[in-house]
Amino acid sequence: MSIHAISAPPITTESFAQFGEVIEITDGPFVLINESKCRRYSDLASFDIDEGRLGLSLFQSELRPTPYECTLLERHPLGSQCFVPMGDSSFFVIVAPDESGKPGPISAFVAGPHQSVNIAKNTWHGVLAPISGTGLFAVLDRIGPGQNLEEYPLEEAVLIKK
Amino acid sequence: MSIHAISAPPITTESFAQFGEVIEITDGPFVLINESKCRRYSDLASFDIDEGRLGLSLFQSELRPTPYECTLLERHPLGSQCFVPMGDSSFFVIVAPDESGKPGPISAFVAGPHQSVNIAKNTWHGVLAPISGTGLFAVLDRIGPGQNLEEYPLEEAVLIKK
Repeated sequence: MSIHAISAPPITTESFAQFGEVIEITDGPFVLINESKCRRYSDLASFDIDEGRLGLSLFQSELRPTPYECTLLERHPLGSQCFVPMGDSSFFVIVAPDESGKPGPISAFVAGPHQSVNIAKNTWHGVLAPISGTGLFAVLDRIGPGQNLEEYPLEEAVLIKK
Repeated sequence: MSIHAISAPPITTESFAQFGEVIEITDGPFVLINESKCRRYSDLASFDIDEGRLGLSLFQSELRPTPYECTLLERHPLGSQCFVPMGDSSFFVIVAPDESGKPGPISAFVAGPHQSVNIAKNTWHGVLAPISGTGLFAVLDRIGPGQNLEEYPLEEAVLIKK
């Protein structure tokens, strides 16, 4: 299998916008609560769930080596999928636009332990790929019956570099 | 104000059952995904939201000193509230049963960075009190109009010790 390498810059709301949301503390609005000892930044995710409901699951993943070889993308036609890193985990976020039912050019990013990522419904993405920390994530995605997974083995592997 | 001290043992599903859920990896069922490199433990939280919807917010709290003096409890009559620690945060979880509209005897626990806690609807609890880590939490609770907060200043402060 041939392979080509791409670099993964730090993820930002702007660079990721066509694929989903980066959920992190910004200079956006907050409410001071708990005797002014806590800032609450409210309602930051656009959950988008069809024919089911939103549930909380835990993913315990092995850490992946860097550079990381990506050979498969997948997508979830019935719902968004939000990854919240626990235990100081950072992770690769690998995505592609759709081109006539297949993934187009692949982009990769690094998300830090303070950044959750909500991948939009039906967006091509690589599997969870933590590269530091405990590899434990809280995941908010669709719970319900039916086929919510489509996989696409890549013709050419992509080597993701930090 | 008078004060009395209580100890906070590590939180467990069993000890916390009357107040809500501890969401952590156990020997419960999982599905192996991502070429067997990831365990998925599905649908672990019982979200319970009235007259609104579930949203994801970020809480950035100051760390609290230990022992920690608790002088106020609160409850949310319209929804459960789930705290997911990010950045290796551990935290005190302070709760009490209801006794005729007032908090009964207070219990306290320590939750670790690998443990999320879903406080049941209308359950008396102390405010978020992280004691290590970054103090950053993802919070899943009710987004909607109306009064969803009831506060109760304690007649006697409670000193929470690890």
